[in-house]
Amino acid sequence: MKLSKIASILGCDFQGKDIEIVGMNTLKDAEENEVSFVSNTKYVKDIESTNAAAVILSENLADKLSVDCVALFTKNPYWSMAILSKYFAPPIEDDTLPSPVIGTNCSISAKAEIANGAVIGKNCTIMAHAYVGAEAIIGDNTIIYPSVTIYRDCVVGEECIIHANTVVGSDGFGFATNKKGEHKKIYQNGNVVIENDVEIGSNVSIDRAVFGSTMVKKGTRIDNLVQIGHNCEIGEYSVLVSQVGLAGSSKLGRNVVMGGQAATAGHLEIAPFSKFAARSGITNTIKVPGKTYAGFPLMDHRAWLKLQAKLARLIK
Amino acid sequence: MKLSKIASILGCDFQGKDIEIVGMNTLKDAEENEVSFVSNTKYVKDIESTNAAAVILSENLADKLSVDCVALFTKNPYWSMAILSKYFAPPIEDDTLPSPVIGTNCSISAKAEIANGAVIGKNCTIMAHAYVGAEAIIGDNTIIYPSVTIYRDCVVGEECIIHANTVVGSDGFGFATNKKGEHKKIYQNGNVVIENDVEIGSNVSIDRAVFGSTMVKKGTRIDNLVQIGHNCEIGEYSVLVSQVGLAGSSKLGRNVVMGGQAATAGHLEIAPFSKFAARSGITNTIKVPGKTYAGFPLMDHRAWLKLQAKLARLIK
Amino acid sequence: MKLSKIASILGCDFQGKDIEIVGMNTLKDAEENEVSFVSNTKYVKDIESTNAAAVILSENLADKLSVDCVALFTKNPYWSMAILSKYFAPPIEDDTLPSPVIGTNCSISAKAEIANGAVIGKNCTIMAHAYVGAEAIIGDNTIIYPSVTIYRDCVVGEECIIHANTVVGSDGFGFATNKKGEHKKIYQNGNVVIENDVEIGSNVSIDRAVFGSTMVKKGTRIDNLVQIGHNCEIGEYSVLVSQVGLAGSSKLGRNVVMGGQAATAGHLEIAPFSKFAARSGITNTIKVPGKTYAGFPLMDHRAWLKLQAKLARLIK
Repeated sequence: MKLSKIASILGCDFQGKDIEIVGMNTLKDAEENEVSFVSNTKYVKDIESTNAAAVILSENLADKLSVDCVALFTKNPYWSMAILSKYFAPPIEDDTLPSPVIGTNCSISAKAEIANGAVIGKNCTIMAHAYVGAEAIIGDNTIIYPSVTIYRDCVVGEECIIHANTVVGSDGFGFATNKKGEHKKIYQNGNVVIENDVEIGSNVSIDRAVFGSTMVKKGTRIDNLVQIGHNCEIGEYSVLVSQVGLAGSSKLGRNVVMGGQAATAGHLEIAPFSKFAARSGITNTIKVPGKTYAGFPLMDHRAWLKLQAKLARLIK
Repeated sequence: MKLSKIASILGCDFQGKDIEIVGMNTLKDAEENEVSFVSNTKYVKDIESTNAAAVILSENLADKLSVDCVALFTKNPYWSMAILSKYFAPPIEDDTLPSPVIGTNCSISAKAEIANGAVIGKNCTIMAHAYVGAEAIIGDNTIIYPSVTIYRDCVVGEECIIHANTVVGSDGFGFATNKKGEHKKIYQNGNVVIENDVEIGSNVSIDRAVFGSTMVKKGTRIDNLVQIGHNCEIGEYSVLVSQVGLAGSSKLGRNVVMGGQAATAGHLEIAPFSKFAARSGITNTIKVPGKTYAGFPLMDHRAWLKLQAKLARLIK
Repeated sequence: MKLSKIASILGCDFQGKDIEIVGMNTLKDAEENEVSFVSNTKYVKDIESTNAAAVILSENLADKLSVDCVALFTKNPYWSMAILSKYFAPPIEDDTLPSPVIGTNCSISAKAEIANGAVIGKNCTIMAHAYVGAEAIIGDNTIIYPSVTIYRDCVVGEECIIHANTVVGSDGFGFATNKKGEHKKIYQNGNVVIENDVEIGSNVSIDRAVFGSTMVKKGTRIDNLVQIGHNCEIGEYSVLVSQVGLAGSSKLGRNVVMGGQAATAGHLEIAPFSKFAARSGITNTIKVPGKTYAGFPLMDHRAWLKLQAKLARLIK
């Protein structure tokens, strides 16, 4: 889409070269043919160094922008970004894509649906009522149980097992809100990448990224009814017990273990080999690896035990 | 069904005009051709003013009933109501209903199932393995992702998006229990109504009402793995983050925001623009709009922060 | 499989009679043609009395074993057990099994999938996109809503109702972990048995047992989005409210009631008629029947109320 068209969609003036824009991205990750945005003061520092062709921002940030980069001034850049995201959303399915490619020795149920553009590896089992979306890729020897839904563009590695009724790639929970309290959807144009040797339980939800990929790394084990928000990153060999919830953009190091119903707030990092007791509530980044925590607010596991002992004494 | 038949099913005496009864309802909402019941002292006040043709109640409440209303005396009115509810349950599917009506320009997967009596608007996308039940209505421009199940009689508005494997209209958790501890199902003969511009994540459960409708109002955003009990009402533009649980008959005003894993007890009301931190546990009605809460038991958000600071000092 | 083959798979020496082994089991439940293992000091006491043909164990426990029983010494018996479990896993589906047997007067959707070897009783309703696996058994008058997945070998009783998108028999969360932090799947070769008159909500996950059966007994009511781990046992007429989570091997007596989001740790027993407030966290066995609890850590319900009152005073 031409930059002039984007300016027209957002109702803003446009000055500069009218290049072709192929997508949207964060300031940090945007390439020369992408448009970006600033809606959070936290990211103002990234304006100067962005490679984006154009940036949607409020007028008061004008002087931060490099001369090569086109400014698209709007009153509510986050809302503008939401409006624009719809134009870059691919169709849910696409009949013009080639028929799916199925590897040798697969068992694909006649009652499964494999969309055009999908690629299935060798020796895969794809059971009844499973759905594999457009341009999704499934690696060799992977088992997809009944009623699993893999959305378009998502990638599942080799030797994976995904249990029944799990969803990979549903839209992240993203929207802008205006002063009237109305919401505008931010189309989630990223995907989910699940590496090799991952087992995922039943009724799990893993959301696709708004930009880039939600990542589940090699060897991870995910139990039933777990929520993984958009743009999360789960380190290798991590273990997420049933009903765990990860808010968007949580980054877990390798071999992190989270007990049942434990949860994270968004946009934080957890050091490798951290362990969390059931129902831990993690609201801050954890930098030191290998420790054990409990409680909400989160504390060292021993401190939590001590606190509970103190509280028990309170009522005696 | 004739009133005499109902009396016979419940094994109780019957005096009065033997009129045709078309349904069951609460004392407050029952019309002249419906039967109601009293099983909770909280509702005794509604007996006098009910329009119900007949009321199932215990003998000691006889004098509360107006002369126009037929009394159906039983030992356990709630159990009796449960027994009777089965007789008013429509069939799950019904071949005698007309073929579904599909609007123009829809994309309906050959692997979706649209039951007889359903009505689908214009420009809808209904993907593989989705199910739209008898007499369900789907508004224009709505997208139903794979393996979504919409039970019979439910209504979904225009411009809605329902993500994969979500269930709209499963039975509310209703049953009577006798002295032996056995349970008797209360058939859930209401429905779910989702208004326009609502987006619902994956693996969500929204239960149908026992009578009337579970309501999700215009512009609401619901994340993954959320539970909405029977007869809940979610106000316009509300936001329910992942793993929220609403017990039956919770009424949320507009623009209520509930953080991840927050939950309500049943039968309470929450004022508009209330905000709840993740894992809040709401057990009482909130009348003042626009405040922010946290904790379980619930408290003002700042009080919760203060309490956590005090507790942290306890273990030092 | 011959015992010599097993020894060869595990890379251990083998002395004794080379009998045919038909399965794996716990020390306590193993029969004369099964192999067992010891990986937890808690079970060392069961070695002497086991009927297993052979036991995988570490060399230092050699003297505990009866002379009739073959010792299979390995460095990491749990890891060895995981390796071996794959060899005893039946195929997910099996075309050589007979066509499914369907009772009279059933309504089975053409869009449901009933695997070979399954047996469906009389008067059952099995809706679109439901899946009933190999050798699964469904009792008379049972209703299976859309997109329910019943894995192979599972048993559902008579007069049951299973709501949409629920999963019965997904693999329990079982794996061994080595010193590098890598995980090895323990194949879950047991099943799930649901007795008569059980109603299960939507989006529920009930895991199959590793050995033996996960049990849901007669008359139980399970709400939406509930997690039931492998080898759990739910007593008759129990009530599990939405988003409850039961860790593996929890044994509930009859008429246990768990409020919303309540959860158990694994391997504990709960006395009959126990009641738990919403969000209770149960980490120990409860031996006295009929009491009411709350909180995490769990305490008597009145003690919890008292504690909350004390805490409220702390911040005044």
